[in-house]
Amino acid sequence: MHVTALSGGVGGARFLRGLTTYLARTPDLADTTVTIIGNTGDDITLFGLRVCPDLDTLLYTLGGGVHEGQGWGRAADTTAVQTELAALGVQPQWFGLGDRDLGTHIARSMWLGQGQSLSQVTARLATRWGLSERGVTLLPMTDTPVETHVVIDDGEGPRAVHFQEWWVRLRAAVPAQRFVVVGMERATAAPGVLDAIRRADVVLLPPSNPVVSVGIILGVPGVRDALRGTQAPVVGVSPLVAGRPVRGHADACLQAIGVETTSAAVAGLYADFLTGWLVDDRDADTQVPAGVTLRHRPLLMRDLDSAAEIAGEALRLGLDLRRR
Amino acid sequence: MHVTALSGGVGGARFLRGLTTYLARTPDLADTTVTIIGNTGDDITLFGLRVCPDLDTLLYTLGGGVHEGQGWGRAADTTAVQTELAALGVQPQWFGLGDRDLGTHIARSMWLGQGQSLSQVTARLATRWGLSERGVTLLPMTDTPVETHVVIDDGEGPRAVHFQEWWVRLRAAVPAQRFVVVGMERATAAPGVLDAIRRADVVLLPPSNPVVSVGIILGVPGVRDALRGTQAPVVGVSPLVAGRPVRGHADACLQAIGVETTSAAVAGLYADFLTGWLVDDRDADTQVPAGVTLRHRPLLMRDLDSAAEIAGEALRLGLDLRRR
Repeated sequence: MHVTALSGGVGGARFLRGLTTYLARTPDLADTTVTIIGNTGDDITLFGLRVCPDLDTLLYTLGGGVHEGQGWGRAADTTAVQTELAALGVQPQWFGLGDRDLGTHIARSMWLGQGQSLSQVTARLATRWGLSERGVTLLPMTDTPVETHVVIDDGEGPRAVHFQEWWVRLRAAVPAQRFVVVGMERATAAPGVLDAIRRADVVLLPPSNPVVSVGIILGVPGVRDALRGTQAPVVGVSPLVAGRPVRGHADACLQAIGVETTSAAVAGLYADFLTGWLVDDRDADTQVPAGVTLRHRPLLMRDLDSAAEIAGEALRLGLDLRRR
Repeated sequence: MHVTALSGGVGGARFLRGLTTYLARTPDLADTTVTIIGNTGDDITLFGLRVCPDLDTLLYTLGGGVHEGQGWGRAADTTAVQTELAALGVQPQWFGLGDRDLGTHIARSMWLGQGQSLSQVTARLATRWGLSERGVTLLPMTDTPVETHVVIDDGEGPRAVHFQEWWVRLRAAVPAQRFVVVGMERATAAPGVLDAIRRADVVLLPPSNPVVSVGIILGVPGVRDALRGTQAPVVGVSPLVAGRPVRGHADACLQAIGVETTSAAVAGLYADFLTGWLVDDRDADTQVPAGVTLRHRPLLMRDLDSAAEIAGEALRLGLDLRRR
């Protein structure tokens, strides 16, 4: 069986690690393969190096190298390079890059500079992290460089800042007026992305940010049509619990696009292709679009086991819908 | 007063740190300024980053950040990035780059990528290391990317390898047939280089490798003519003691160009502009070209004090020749 998932960073990565754990623990599903389509709208060039935060969080989390406390970056990392860059007066300093993490960015930048596509580079990084041994293929949503920018107004009229600056430096505390995905107009889905959706047995939307993670992937030409057209059930997991994001700033993102911070409103963003929607017990009364099957259960991923249970529930919902 | 020096890496850097120490200790010379013209033939692009080993050794040594035991690289450096690059299977692994050191290369590469010249980049790095407070200006010999390659034959016919591969990986143990400076045919001296030679009160040649350090600088168009034409005495310090290099592989380099490994033969390489030649006591009988004043003294730089004494002796020889 084959599962395809559209994922952002920390929340998606933890959910998907839960999924692979669930699959490994479930004998009749143990040979299931998973293709992850990762958001690249967060990508940023820092110090001349190409950084892909969501792809890296997926690689590190699934490969066992992530900093568990942060949810991103490498475990037990050091900051010698960044300290030296600070001594050289190099900006920005608000984006923390550990030394081990920089090994990834240096290799990626070198390979991209040699003319390899982001897909090819990501496959090489996935080899280092043993993803194929876990039945996982990680694809960037597109090989075209795209960057989510945020239009804000912090007093001197509207201006656009890189998503990372808004998210990390400003902590999403300055209201976003809108999001602009620079480069998306010339983007095409990366090799394998549309087929992975069309040929999946189940498509999952992990509890990633519906606007700046899943929403960005949905903006890649062909992706939304593939979701509408696939024979597979498309099951989403709400990123909200009792009307609040479990992590990150989904509320600030939803506000910017004029959507309520409720599991019902998020499901509405996916109404044209969603077939199953998993919400927290506290949101059991969520109104879902016509044709969508709702289930509820505790959605807090406190640890690997709870993540595995949530992912298992989402997958089972998909399998149930498939049988109909 | 103004001193200009042509320098390679470790030996030159230690000599020049001795010089600035000597100047600081000598009241009537304390306001002397020093311009160093650094060899860039050793430069190499590793992992997509531009590395300038001789310039960095000069910066770190004069700025107090060098690994004293090695003579190059940063003190107390770590290797997290290189370890990660090894895990990613990135080659080469024979060139050791510490994490702090990589901060330099990342910043340099970024600034070069933004269109700044190597001179401008080097000036920014020199600011970080406080060189101007020490009266020192560091100039790359050229802003044109050049790279010394070495023609070797290790069994399958002649082939050219980068100087660093010959020097570091092969430890100069495979005979060099010749040196080729790729890019030199279109190189021009960096801003200030020729003027620094023409307008100097004394020009010094530290005990750097006469072939692959000083010899490469002499190949930059205009440099040799400037040395021939300057009014300043040009005083060299032999890199050999009793017919052997103190450090490095000067013997292998001299052999490649058909020159004996003697202080007399090295002086002969500089015969068209040299006016003073400082050799070790054990080479007191060195035959020097006509018009060159010979002096001898112990030339082993065991520590900062001995380096300061040697540099002071070279400078005093220059001042004596200037008075004539």
